[in-house]
Amino acid sequence: MKKVFLRPLIVTLFLYFACISVAQDPLPSWNDTAPKKAIIAFVERVTKEGSPDFVAAPERIATFDNDGTLWSEKPVPFQLLFAFDRAKAVAPQHPEWKTKEPFASLLKGDMKGVAASGEKGVLEIVAATHTGMTTDEFAQTVQNWITTAKHPTTGRLYTEMVYQPMLELLAYLRVNGFKTFIVSGGGVEFMRPWTERVYGIPPEQVVGSAGKLKLEVRDGKPVLIKLPQVDLIDDKEGKPVGIQSRIGRRPIAAFGNSDGDLQMLQWATAGSGARFALFVHHDDAKREFAYDRADKLQQFDKGWDEAVAKGWTVVSMKDDWKTIYPPK
Amino acid sequence: MKKVFLRPLIVTLFLYFACISVAQDPLPSWNDTAPKKAIIAFVERVTKEGSPDFVAAPERIATFDNDGTLWSEKPVPFQLLFAFDRAKAVAPQHPEWKTKEPFASLLKGDMKGVAASGEKGVLEIVAATHTGMTTDEFAQTVQNWITTAKHPTTGRLYTEMVYQPMLELLAYLRVNGFKTFIVSGGGVEFMRPWTERVYGIPPEQVVGSAGKLKLEVRDGKPVLIKLPQVDLIDDKEGKPVGIQSRIGRRPIAAFGNSDGDLQMLQWATAGSGARFALFVHHDDAKREFAYDRADKLQQFDKGWDEAVAKGWTVVSMKDDWKTIYPPK
Repeated sequence: MKKVFLRPLIVTLFLYFACISVAQDPLPSWNDTAPKKAIIAFVERVTKEGSPDFVAAPERIATFDNDGTLWSEKPVPFQLLFAFDRAKAVAPQHPEWKTKEPFASLLKGDMKGVAASGEKGVLEIVAATHTGMTTDEFAQTVQNWITTAKHPTTGRLYTEMVYQPMLELLAYLRVNGFKTFIVSGGGVEFMRPWTERVYGIPPEQVVGSAGKLKLEVRDGKPVLIKLPQVDLIDDKEGKPVGIQSRIGRRPIAAFGNSDGDLQMLQWATAGSGARFALFVHHDDAKREFAYDRADKLQQFDKGWDEAVAKGWTVVSMKDDWKTIYPPK
Repeated sequence: MKKVFLRPLIVTLFLYFACISVAQDPLPSWNDTAPKKAIIAFVERVTKEGSPDFVAAPERIATFDNDGTLWSEKPVPFQLLFAFDRAKAVAPQHPEWKTKEPFASLLKGDMKGVAASGEKGVLEIVAATHTGMTTDEFAQTVQNWITTAKHPTTGRLYTEMVYQPMLELLAYLRVNGFKTFIVSGGGVEFMRPWTERVYGIPPEQVVGSAGKLKLEVRDGKPVLIKLPQVDLIDDKEGKPVGIQSRIGRRPIAAFGNSDGDLQMLQWATAGSGARFALFVHHDDAKREFAYDRADKLQQFDKGWDEAVAKGWTVVSMKDDWKTIYPPK
């Protein structure tokens, strides 16, 4: 056979394998840099039967922070923007707010005034908008807001500000027998109404901060009232507590983006056998936001140092991700 | 064709359909009485696509009480027997217990003396044996006990005192797309080490009473310490609270055996669409135990009345179950 006859065959074969390789790439929005390679190497190690690092499927628990890890968190965590919108919406039922801080500033649109009220003031707005109603009423309010409210600078729905590479990572882990959980400092009742639709994570796999609940009977039916007392602050030391109390298994892989996630990553990696820990580093001011050691709200400082010291994976959003958000 | 030729064919067909029918019975340890029929009718209604009662698979949440619903609970809930055994095992480290009630009575084998200390005394024994250690240490202790300790009257391992008909029910629901959860007044850390092996229910689907946890670093590794403060009493009004805080979805089917489960069944049935509620009635003194309205520890009184009034299913262990425990 002459070489000239071989050429079409070789081209065909090349295209065929190229297509296969494209079709099989489980993380197409990730550049072929170190983080993607580390993720795939870990998943292959723990799923290969007979390998010394094999982990049985039921033990393949992966936990993800939400704010800044699965979706954006600037200018402030989106739940706060929900709280501000809700306060404005219910203000007519609270005439006293016109002269009471931080509500007065909020209603005038004076966000500096709100900020001046400090953490205490902000928590007052959260308490006023997150407690006193039934869990069903609150879920409905969240549902209405999350499907209509738009981000102040991107103009996107908040659920359109989830990270496409992380959606692919969640799906890739699940295809490989992992059970994916959210373990977030955000409110559990704020996340559950939409995480299944947006992330494929059902309500029973969402762990978050929570207030106490009280059973009451209204119109002959039991309802659960959201109380202003704290049940769980699912941040920092609270994340391993949330994982143990709600999940009851130590994750073998954990994903975060700030010092608030450090204890979760420490907890996951302190178990025996193969472990994986990853921080998303927000270094992409052009396509998203850039903040780390100096940030007051979502500092990434101690976590970064520990990641470097322990060889954990740190994702540069700028260099390691082809895209940030899903196509609209 | 003469009739004589037909006979072998008819016999063959009869045997064929008889075999199919046996092979397809999903609840072989249940007699063909009303409860079995009600369970199967409900499952068929909610799983038949296009039916007005169809429920999408992710919403098929079923919650089960544990003590008295999935396994026996006499003479006292088995976790108490674990607590007594543990107190005896660690007594050498507590010389002061020799003269301190209720420990002194317990160590002398004087159970009347222990009972005389009342709920307060029993809770002291529970606190002394369930707190102060790490969650990993506690899980190991439970694992050792549950695989070796035997029930005082049956001589069985406690995990051999689970109800065979309920094991079949759990499997039947799961085959039909249900996610099965335990929602028990028992301790979550006491159940999780063995529920996956015994019931097929993984740790993350077990809700139970819980103490607070505290993250500490020991020998450079994070550990969670079990504290004596209460986090959740997952009984009565606490069951809907446990369901909402840990699962975040309202069950469409709920199973219990005593008044401690009534609020869970009310919560499940108060949702819209098809709902199922079932109480196991302990009326089989010969094969298990018989107790209901007059029982002080596990009363079945208000729940029974409400079940009758609302048409919920009440299982007579004597009449509706062919067997109680799995074959040894």
